[in-house]
Formats: sequence, C-alpha cells, structure tokens
Amino acid sequence: MARKENNFEIRTDLAVEQRESFPGDGGEIAGVALREWRESGSAVKMSEVQILDEHGARAMGKPKGIYLTLEADGMAGNDEEEAEEIAEEFALQLRRLLLREQKKIKRGAQITPKELEGFKEPQEPKGEKVKNKADRTGFAGRRILVVGLGNAFVTPDALGPRTAGNLKVTRHLDGQFGAGFCQEKNLPLLSAIVPGVMAQTGMESAEILKGIVRETKPEMVVVIDALAARSVRRLGTTIQLTDTGIHPGSGVGNHRHGLTRESLGVPVFAVGVPTVVGATSIVHDTISSLEAWEIEEKPGWEEKLEPELRNLYVTPPDIDERIQRISRILCDGIHQALFEPETCL
Amino acid sequence: MARKENNFEIRTDLAVEQRESFPGDGGEIAGVALREWRESGSAVKMSEVQILDEHGARAMGKPKGIYLTLEADGMAGNDEEEAEEIAEEFALQLRRLLLREQKKIKRGAQITPKELEGFKEPQEPKGEKVKNKADRTGFAGRRILVVGLGNAFVTPDALGPRTAGNLKVTRHLDGQFGAGFCQEKNLPLLSAIVPGVMAQTGMESAEILKGIVRETKPEMVVVIDALAARSVRRLGTTIQLTDTGIHPGSGVGNHRHGLTRESLGVPVFAVGVPTVVGATSIVHDTISSLEAWEIEEKPGWEEKLEPELRNLYVTPPDIDERIQRISRILCDGIHQALFEPETCL
Amino acid sequence: MARKENNFEIRTDLAVEQRESFPGDGGEIAGVALREWRESGSAVKMSEVQILDEHGARAMGKPKGIYLTLEADGMAGNDEEEAEEIAEEFALQLRRLLLREQKKIKRGAQITPKELEGFKEPQEPKGEKVKNKADRTGFAGRRILVVGLGNAFVTPDALGPRTAGNLKVTRHLDGQFGAGFCQEKNLPLLSAIVPGVMAQTGMESAEILKGIVRETKPEMVVVIDALAARSVRRLGTTIQLTDTGIHPGSGVGNHRHGLTRESLGVPVFAVGVPTVVGATSIVHDTISSLEAWEIEEKPGWEEKLEPELRNLYVTPPDIDERIQRISRILCDGIHQALFEPETCL
Amino acid sequence: MARKENNFEIRTDLAVEQRESFPGDGGEIAGVALREWRESGSAVKMSEVQILDEHGARAMGKPKGIYLTLEADGMAGNDEEEAEEIAEEFALQLRRLLLREQKKIKRGAQITPKELEGFKEPQEPKGEKVKNKADRTGFAGRRILVVGLGNAFVTPDALGPRTAGNLKVTRHLDGQFGAGFCQEKNLPLLSAIVPGVMAQTGMESAEILKGIVRETKPEMVVVIDALAARSVRRLGTTIQLTDTGIHPGSGVGNHRHGLTRESLGVPVFAVGVPTVVGATSIVHDTISSLEAWEIEEKPGWEEKLEPELRNLYVTPPDIDERIQRISRILCDGIHQALFEPETCL
Repeated sequence: MARKENNFEIRTDLAVEQRESFPGDGGEIAGVALREWRESGSAVKMSEVQILDEHGARAMGKPKGIYLTLEADGMAGNDEEEAEEIAEEFALQLRRLLLREQKKIKRGAQITPKELEGFKEPQEPKGEKVKNKADRTGFAGRRILVVGLGNAFVTPDALGPRTAGNLKVTRHLDGQFGAGFCQEKNLPLLSAIVPGVMAQTGMESAEILKGIVRETKPEMVVVIDALAARSVRRLGTTIQLTDTGIHPGSGVGNHRHGLTRESLGVPVFAVGVPTVVGATSIVHDTISSLEAWEIEEKPGWEEKLEPELRNLYVTPPDIDERIQRISRILCDGIHQALFEPETCL
Repeated sequence: MARKENNFEIRTDLAVEQRESFPGDGGEIAGVALREWRESGSAVKMSEVQILDEHGARAMGKPKGIYLTLEADGMAGNDEEEAEEIAEEFALQLRRLLLREQKKIKRGAQITPKELEGFKEPQEPKGEKVKNKADRTGFAGRRILVVGLGNAFVTPDALGPRTAGNLKVTRHLDGQFGAGFCQEKNLPLLSAIVPGVMAQTGMESAEILKGIVRETKPEMVVVIDALAARSVRRLGTTIQLTDTGIHPGSGVGNHRHGLTRESLGVPVFAVGVPTVVGATSIVHDTISSLEAWEIEEKPGWEEKLEPELRNLYVTPPDIDERIQRISRILCDGIHQALFEPETCL
Repeated sequence: MARKENNFEIRTDLAVEQRESFPGDGGEIAGVALREWRESGSAVKMSEVQILDEHGARAMGKPKGIYLTLEADGMAGNDEEEAEEIAEEFALQLRRLLLREQKKIKRGAQITPKELEGFKEPQEPKGEKVKNKADRTGFAGRRILVVGLGNAFVTPDALGPRTAGNLKVTRHLDGQFGAGFCQEKNLPLLSAIVPGVMAQTGMESAEILKGIVRETKPEMVVVIDALAARSVRRLGTTIQLTDTGIHPGSGVGNHRHGLTRESLGVPVFAVGVPTVVGATSIVHDTISSLEAWEIEEKPGWEEKLEPELRNLYVTPPDIDERIQRISRILCDGIHQALFEPETCL
Repeated sequence: MARKENNFEIRTDLAVEQRESFPGDGGEIAGVALREWRESGSAVKMSEVQILDEHGARAMGKPKGIYLTLEADGMAGNDEEEAEEIAEEFALQLRRLLLREQKKIKRGAQITPKELEGFKEPQEPKGEKVKNKADRTGFAGRRILVVGLGNAFVTPDALGPRTAGNLKVTRHLDGQFGAGFCQEKNLPLLSAIVPGVMAQTGMESAEILKGIVRETKPEMVVVIDALAARSVRRLGTTIQLTDTGIHPGSGVGNHRHGLTRESLGVPVFAVGVPTVVGATSIVHDTISSLEAWEIEEKPGWEEKLEPELRNLYVTPPDIDERIQRISRILCDGIHQALFEPETCL
C-alpha cells in the first residue's frame, strides 16, 4: 500500500494507535520502544509503548513515559468470567505501575531508559504477586486519590464518574477509628473524587484537584477518563494505563489543562478507555479495508470536510451498557490492585 | 457527478431521504409526489412525500401513504422558543393527519390519490385550527392509544418510551368519574403504553399491542419510534409523520413485525425521529462532500466491508440530552394536537 | 396487655402480619393454619399462613390460599453470601408453589385443605430439587409470564418493574429458532411485562394484562409487586409468596382491580415485598414497645387523625439501594426456580 | 395542655421548628427575635428567626444569625405558576441575605443586633429590586461558589447535588474570553461543586471545600442541603435560608464537620429543605393531634425506644418527584437572584 499514513492527523488518545500509524508497523522509531505479549491462555493482549526520550516524545506527540495497553474483545461482551480475567490482568498491571513508582520515590531517582527496560519482562508469574503475598499489598497505609474525570450526564464521558463513584474508599476510617487504623489493617488510605466538568462547575478540573491534593495530601493520584480512539474496533475493548497523567487536549471532554506530576505535585497515573471515535476515523477505516478501491487517500482531506463532519464524534448505540460493564471491571481491578484478596469492607 | 446513487442501499427509515437518493433530485418518479414548503417566518422546513400507488411503493421500498417531514436544526439546540415553535408545527401536522383519517372512517372509504391531493395545501392558516376553535378539538371523546416503541435503557432507542411515559393520559377518567366524562370535558380518551422490546419481554411488540388494542378498543393508534437515517445532519433534527404505521425492519431496534392497520385492526400513525446513522452513511457523506477526490463510488462497496463496519450504527455523544429535548417536543406537540389550549389536568 | 388488637385496621398486605394481629399470637383461628420453621443454619425464617375456608377468609380479610413468608434481616444488608442464600430459599419456595399448581392443573382438581397439608413439610431436603435434578426443572416448555407491577419512577413502587425488567426471557427463542426449541433445551417459555400504572397509561393493569394473556397464552402468571406493611421492621426484609394473585386495594399503588385466576383465566401467583408503612403503624409500634406508658390504645384513634397523618405512607431514606438489592434477589431467585443451574443465555 | 414540650429532643434542622417547641408559642425567648409575614396575595408564608446573642444561641441550640423560612404547601404540588412565585420569593430573600453580607464585608464590621433590626422590614416592595434594577444585580463580577451537599444516589439527600448540578455557571467565561468578561456582561463569577459524601470520597466535605476555596477564591459560598424536620407537614414545603453556614450534626447525612466562615474563611450561607423526619416526630405529631387521648407524653420516652425506631428516619414515597420539583425551584431562584432577568447563557 502506498498510502502516506503519517499525514493523517486523526485524533487518538491511545499511544498504541499513534505508534501503529507509522509506516511499516514493525519498524523502529528512535526513542520509542514497543513490546507485545499475551499471557498463555489469557484473553487479554498486552502491549507496552515506552517513550524514552524527547525525540520519541516529538515523534509520538505524547510525553515521555510508559503506556500499557490491555486489549480484549470480551470487555464489551457479557461473559462474566472473561470480565473477571480482564479485571485481574488490569489489577496486576496497575499494581506494577504504582509499585514501580513507589520504589522510585524512595530512591528519589529519575526514570532512566535502563530502569524501564527492567520492567519489560513481567518478573513474577501472573497473579503471584496479587495472590501469594496476601499479607502485604505494598499499599498498606499509602495515601491514594482516585479521580473520576468526565461528565456523569453524557454517557460516553461517564466512565470516570461511574468508576470512582463505586470505589470502597477507606481514608476516612483513620478519622473514625484513629490514625494508623488503615495501616494496621493492611488497607490503603483510599479516597475518590468526581470533580465534574467545567460547564457544570465553572472551574477547571485541575483547579479543583490542586485544591483537594493540597488539602488531603495523597501520595499518588490515579485518574480515570474516557478517551477518543481512531479505530471503532477499540471502542470499549481497550484499557490504557500510563504514568504520564492527563494532558491538555486529551479525553472525550477535551481537557484544557493537564493533570500531571508538574501541576499536582505528586505522581499522576491515568487509566483510560476509548468510548468515542471521530467520524473521519470511520472513513479512514473503511477506505483502508477496501484495498480494491486502490484509492490513495489525499493528504489533508479531513481539513476540507465540512466542520459538521470533521468534528463529529460518534459512539455505539449500546454505550450505556458498555460503560456500565467497563466501569465495573475498572472498579474491581482497582480493588484487587490495592486491597488484600479477603478484605471485607 | 456520475455516481449511480441508486446502487446505494444504505438503510434509511426516512421517506424523504429515500426520495433524495434518486438521481436528479428534482426529477419525477412515477407514483411518488413530493411537495416542500415553509411557513413564512417559520424555523421549520416541511416536506411531504406521497406514495400514490404500487409502482411508487416498489420504487421507494415503502408502503403507500403520506410521509410528512419536519426539519429544523433548532430541534437539537437549546432555544426554548424554537422548541415551542417546532412543537406547534408538529401539533398542527399531527392534527391534520389524524382528522383526515377520522373523516375517512366515517365515510368508510379507501384512500385515493385524489383525496391525498386535497391535503397538499394546508387548508387553514397555521395555528388557526389549534387556537381559534378552542371549543372543539375534534378529538373529544375519541379513543386514542399512543405507543412508545423502543428500549428505555438504550438511549438512542428511548425516544418512544420517554415520550409516551410523559403524556397526560385521560382514558381512566371515564372510569373514575363516569362514562362520558371526557367527552363532556372536551377531552380525548387518551391512553399510552410502553411495550418494551423483545429481548426484555420475550414477546413481539405486535403481540402485546394486539392484545391491548383488542381489550381497550382505541379508534386509532399513534406509535412513537426512534429511526435510522442516512445523513448525520438529520440526527435529532427531523420528525417524520406517516399514516402507514410501522413496518418490519424499520426503527433503531429493527422491528420484526409490523404495526399497521392490517395487524392491529385500527388506523396506525407513526411519529419517528432519526437518532442513529450507519457508519457506511458517514463514509458516503464524506466522499460526497469531497468532490476533489473525484472518486467514483464503486457499486456495492458496503457489502465488501467487514461485518463490523457494515453493521455499525453510531449516535452522537450528547444523545442523552437530544433525546430528552425531542421527547419533550413530541410530548408537548401531542398535547397541543389533542387537547384544548387551556386544559388543566 | 389488655389492648384489643383486632380493632386496629392499620393496613397491611402481609398475611403473616394480619395473623399476628389477633389476640394471643399462638392461638387458633378457625379456618386459618399457621406454620413456622427455619432450615438448620439458614438465615431465613419461614412461615406459612393457610386460609382454608370462607370463615378463615372473612377473619383474615384475604382470600383462601397459601401465603408463604420469607424473613431475613440480611435482605436489606450488603452481605452477598446472605443475599445468595435468600435467593436460593426463595427459588425453592417459588418452585414448590408453581409445581404444586401444575400438578393440580393436570388433575383438574380443586384445592382441598387435605392437599394443602401435604405441603406443610418440605418433601425434599433443601436444595436437592434445585441442584440434583439438573436435567429436569419441571418447567421445560411451560409458558410463564412474569408481571412487574408498579410505577418505575416512584422508587418504593419500582420493585416490580426493576425485577421484571432484568429477567432472562426466552419465549421469543421459539419464534427465532423454531417451535419446540425451548422445550428441547430444557428452558421455560418465559415472558415478562411492565404494564405501568393507570396514571401513566390511562388503562387498568388488569385490562392490559387480560389483553396480553389472551394474545400470548401463558399457562401461569407470576406478579411482582411492592407492598404496604404494618411494621417498619419488615421494610425490605420480608418476601411474601401467594397463590391467590393480587386483590383490589393491595400494593403500594393500591390496585383498583384484581389480578386473579378469575380475572385472567390462568393461575396467578404473587410475590410481594413491603417497601412502605403507614405512619399510623409507626405510632402503633411505638406505643406497643413502650409498655411503661401503660396506655390503652383507644379503638378507632386512626380515624380521628387529620387526613394528612392518617394517609401518610413512609419509606426509609435508603430505599433506592434496598429496592436495587431486593430486585436482584428476586430476579436471581426466579432464574434459579425456572432454569437449570448451568443454563447460559 | 400540660406537656413539657422542651423536654423533647426530637431532632430538627429548622430554627423555626426549634422556636415553636418552646412553651407558649407567642412567648419571648431572651436573645431570639421572631417575625412572620406574608406578602399580600402571596402563596408564601415568611418567617424570620434571629438569634441575637449567646443566650439565644444556647436556648435554641443553634449559632447566632438569621434564619429565614419560606413556607408554601404548593412547593410539593404540580402548579407551575405557584412554583414560579415561590422561586421569585426565594430569589428575593437570597438576594437580600447576600447583598447585606456584601455591604458588611465592605465596611469590615461585625453583625450587630441593631443592624439585624434594619432588615426586619422588607425595604423594597417585592420584586422591585429584582425587576427594576435590571441593569445592576449587585453581583456583577463577584465570585460566588454554590455547593450541593449530600449523596446524589440517596434520593432524599440528593437535593443539593441536583440543584448545584443544574446551575448556569460562569466563572470559566473569564478564562475563555478574558479577565473582566463577566463583570462587563453584568454576570457573577458563579461556580458550583458537588463534593459527594464521605462514604463515597473518603474525605470530609469540609476538607474538599477548603481545598477548592483556597484554590479558586470565591468571596462567598452558598451551600444547598437536605434537612431533617420534626413535622411531616414540612417535608418538601419549607425552605430555610441562613447566614450561619452548616453545622456539625445537621443535614440528612449528618455532617461531622461544619462549613462556616470560620472553617472556610469566607461567608457561608445555607439553603436547606427538609426531606426526612424522624419516626419519633410522627409519634409526637400523632399524640399531639389526639387531645382526646389526654396522654401526658412521658419525658424521655424516645430514649426508651428500641434503636430501630429511635433512629428511624422516613421520607414520603413520592420523594423523587418532590426533590425534582424543589431542586428546580432552588435553581431558578438562584439564577433570578444573581443574574439580570434577560440574561441568556
């Protein structure tokens, strides 16, 4: 195919899609490392894009850091067992991302490409960490704030609010039963907030969260957000985890200000699931899948479209159900990542 | 343009879109009459497609009858005055359609193309009928059943349930205050039902409604339903009224059985608003608007698409709000059409 | 205590409360049999009131038949295991009630007190019927309609709609895969309907259901409804099953017409959970629990109350959550009663 | 009647109910001033309790300040005109309370009883201020934060979230169109937040709001909250406005920490509507209305009740609808109080 794919600037919030858009899918991009794997017998396909330096960041249009992707068609389906398997895999990856950060904090060191490499291979067999070290999660007494970004009243943007709204928070237990209670019971000091969107609050999410972080002093922040993808195949079938936070222009609601270590003063992790695609992506997908057309997509055709089509984002009709199902997977996964298996709250 | 538009079989429930798909938009199709107008100063563009005979029915793929279309971009917007204007225009057209039928019932005659012609020109100045003849609506004591088709839990399919669920029903007042109460108070005997969808009930809507119609004996049935359109421009901006009922394969939920005078035994009117479009429509729209591409769309390209894309229906992210707004317009319009202006219930 | 309890006419839909209101709780009422038991280790307390003849019916103000009551404080709680146990017990009792009816239909006989006695002792160890005879549920190919009575938009009245709205219906599978499909797959022909309330539909639920029953021909009907109780202790902690259907004046919405074998032409079972109590009940509860007051409640005091208080029904503030939880228990229980354990739909 | 009313400690969040509980309703309590009036022809009954000094505060169990009460049975009804009238009256009172504070801020003075007196008589005929001074609201460019306290998922506690969630916020317009935009357009810099409850967030509302206030610097805070009343007659028929903020132990959710000028650093106004009553209040109401019983309520009877009854709060079955209606009244009223009549946002 002779299409010049990199002329496309169809918006995606997924690093793995950005990476795929480069010509010659298996090729090398300086400063960007790609790794893909699947646990044996697992329904979940994993990929990890690492943006290692400024060159990679420029090429990818995304900041340096790790971008993990979990893909499973079953995410959108009805199979409860598959949903549990996805939640477990998500829990494992989230744990690793957070624990890695925690060690770094202790050492006070910067991330180096070397260190990142160390995480290329999962060092423990799947599930072991979660299941065998039941006595110690690594998060006992740690202060973690989960943020559910997005508009609870616009379904495809409601993923964050619905996930954060169903978490088993614990931070207040120290207030009720005495400081140290959570640590002793092997619980994190988990708090959660749904800040709303600017059109509802008149405030930037970043402002609201800065205030709350300053007042309640979490050690790390995990942000849940709905994303825009390029491919309809990814709607509700992909979870992206990153240690880079949220950046301006990303998300369904198109955040104007970032939520990052720089803006909030603590490490910010982001968990995102694509729930909308641009209409132009659909056109692109269609033309790509019709090789018989032998069309060379003209560079910049999107800009010539009427604004109506150019800015049209769409979502599947059963989006209510999908959001419901995925928010439950994320919620379960966060619980598994932070709590001991048998914890009853 | 040399495209053979009639090779396209992109699905639409709108007669006006089907009509537009023929080559040479202004051209004549035997057995199909088209009329367009706009009341002076009105925000609503009206069109009327009449399918006059079997030839027209075959060409259009829709049964004989009248298909009225109200178009107004403001339907999807926030302007309350414009919403009121649309509701008023909708009320006027619904009244005319129902009253026309009522006269016919009395005469016991079949619809003839001649008769249809008689309704081409609005015979009363807009609003006069509604406002001046306040003493008589023409529906006092008439038994009318409104049906809200669709799945209340799938937003783009929830238009019918939300509209029917908010109507001011009156049929039970005769039971409470004595037979003849409604007639005396110049009220219709209005009833409403939300039958649910087959995956929820295990029954065809047609079965449920046959039973209810047989038991409660309405003189006419008005069905509200969400539709599939071809053009994204029509999503939430168009209302179609028809005297032909609902036919198999139409609607967002793709009804398997029809709701027609034949199946229910009484005249069935349908009010529909498009809330989804096929992804293939978006591709078609895009290619059409990009004349510079000089692409001849290959006949039958849709069939070559992967099923995933071919069957993908999409909806705008703010569909919740749109459905809310339009169901209110429909609800207000039905009230205005059937009740005297000052009726307090 | 010298209170004349039977002067009280505080409304209750629960036979077990009506029975308790007679003086000398253990005493005998002619024509009414009471039995109480608890499976060993079970969280559920069972009672069965049988109204055996006209005398009993007059004394109890309820028609002849069986009234089973499941009580478990955990119904309102958060414990998932306890919820499962309650659903299982409910499934067992519902199965027995329906199967008993089915046998009777075959014999074409009337219910006799003798026959009722036969069901006093559970004839199979708990769970055996449900679990061991996995190959045969007794309902394969039987046509069962579940009705969710009540107003979906008034939370304490929404129990029926939420339960019926989440059932795995199957009746349409015969239409899709050929007559006999369900029987062959050991499935019931299950259908479900939420008819709405008269203020929404303008029709009596009885009219709607008569039509649907006549058209779709179920062999039995199971009606789910929210009830009024006398004691606040019963709100959301009690399930009543009866083979007598729904009678005028019962339910949160105070049905005007009955849903019975007489009105619908097929056996009608009712499953009810109390979600409101009258304010006067609270006063009565309070005075009863304050023996120190040594008050003799004056007969007929309720009638002297201002209408505002006399007709005040109240509900707990967390009613949303409770309805959610209990509708899930009922839904799970109905599935367990009618389907084989491993059925995947 | 010989009842010692002041022995009752049935909880109420309404100053006007606390005041009524003193023996001899018309009597004087040192340090507490009571005034009642009704605009001629108005559906709204106004009362104002002023707690003038420490003595009054002790007697009333509430802090010094102004407590305005609007009462109108129509609040719970369906009459749109009456709803508008209530919203207008509420807007007028809210304006006066906020403007009065604003003047004080400028003078930097403490509230004196003298000053409070100055507000005893409405100084402008009803509506004049709102309607004639259309060119100047007094709030152009002022920074006001509205807080919707309570649990959005527990209906009787959802009044705050639903009201704050529907406000037309403006604070972000200065960010979008340049600092000074709102002032120039005669708009307030209005922001709104729904902080959630501790069981959802793990944080005290006070912590969240302290952070947000520190970061976004509003000049005043208006808190909307659902209250507990003593009399069922007040459920959804009364609005209380106060300049004292929210105090520990108040509200449906029983706030543990206060939201006051002391805790937040800016003036805090509270708008509350009772949506629950204690079951003990119902008993008290009943006994009071049955003089024929000639019962002397025993002091302290509530403490002897089983905890189940003592702590039982109840709410009317149609609470969903009432919350919907009242949140619209509050929302409209806040808009009318802060914006010019013709403002289109």
